[in-house]
Amino acid sequence: MYYQLRILGIDPSLVACGWGVVDMTGTKLTYIAHGVIRPDAKTGLPLRLREIFESITDVIRKFDPHETAIEEVFMKNNAASALKLGQARAACILASSLAGLTTGEYSPRSVKKSVVGTGTADKTQVAHMIGVLMPGCGVKAGDAADALAIAVCHANRANAAGALYRKSA
Amino acid sequence: MYYQLRILGIDPSLVACGWGVVDMTGTKLTYIAHGVIRPDAKTGLPLRLREIFESITDVIRKFDPHETAIEEVFMKNNAASALKLGQARAACILASSLAGLTTGEYSPRSVKKSVVGTGTADKTQVAHMIGVLMPGCGVKAGDAADALAIAVCHANRANAAGALYRKSA
Repeated sequence: MYYQLRILGIDPSLVACGWGVVDMTGTKLTYIAHGVIRPDAKTGLPLRLREIFESITDVIRKFDPHETAIEEVFMKNNAASALKLGQARAACILASSLAGLTTGEYSPRSVKKSVVGTGTADKTQVAHMIGVLMPGCGVKAGDAADALAIAVCHANRANAAGALYRKSA
Repeated sequence: MYYQLRILGIDPSLVACGWGVVDMTGTKLTYIAHGVIRPDAKTGLPLRLREIFESITDVIRKFDPHETAIEEVFMKNNAASALKLGQARAACILASSLAGLTTGEYSPRSVKKSVVGTGTADKTQVAHMIGVLMPGCGVKAGDAADALAIAVCHANRANAAGALYRKSA
């Protein structure tokens, strides 16, 4: 008997924070929902972080995922960008942690490899493959495609680890 | 009549996150409390962020400050450190924002200038001046002295802006 896992994938950003919900039953992926949180750029950092935190909390309440997944961040050069991204990322991780969910962290390379088959794929390829894997989801590159890809990566890892195949009791 | 302002200053860090509470009545500073949050280094990022968030939320509930103040971060070179610090900082700002408090942000230079008189003061000088300004607070350098200094900086700004002198009704 297959055990179903519902995953919330998050692509953190202070400007456009993507999220996507995916069900995995055995090896079957089902698209559930996606969206992009765009905090009001005219407000200060505390209110923007709060908007991201509350929106992710709302998504968790509405779709009730079992686990969340988020990208790891590697930034060798730009400390200012790393600081901004780190703050957005923390708001998402906190929303997840306070809802009692564990959060998987994946490098951008492993997300791309999991979805497209190569770690050097570009955003257009990732969005294209998300459309192939889950027809009808209607996401575009730059939309929440990366967030759905992170959820798919987490689903594949869970599947490979045997978490999705359970004998019926 | 002087209006009293209670300020929570926060020195964010994933390892040792300092906090300090100060009352300002007119130009008089009164030390209230301080502490350092040290999240369990053996747990992953989500639980460490949650510990910081919940501890700051507890401090806010216990001491009921009117406003919070936190250091701005400038890191030109080290993106990995900026990412970590950004995540800790977001946990503190979110705890404050969700409690309905505004958060003042000050550069390390303006905090030092406000407390010691020069923007290039070292941590020992800052801790010394905190002891002079608020005798009996018993903080040491490396402890929550920086957090108390951030609170004092915010108090001085509020005072200069006339926020602490109000006519009685």
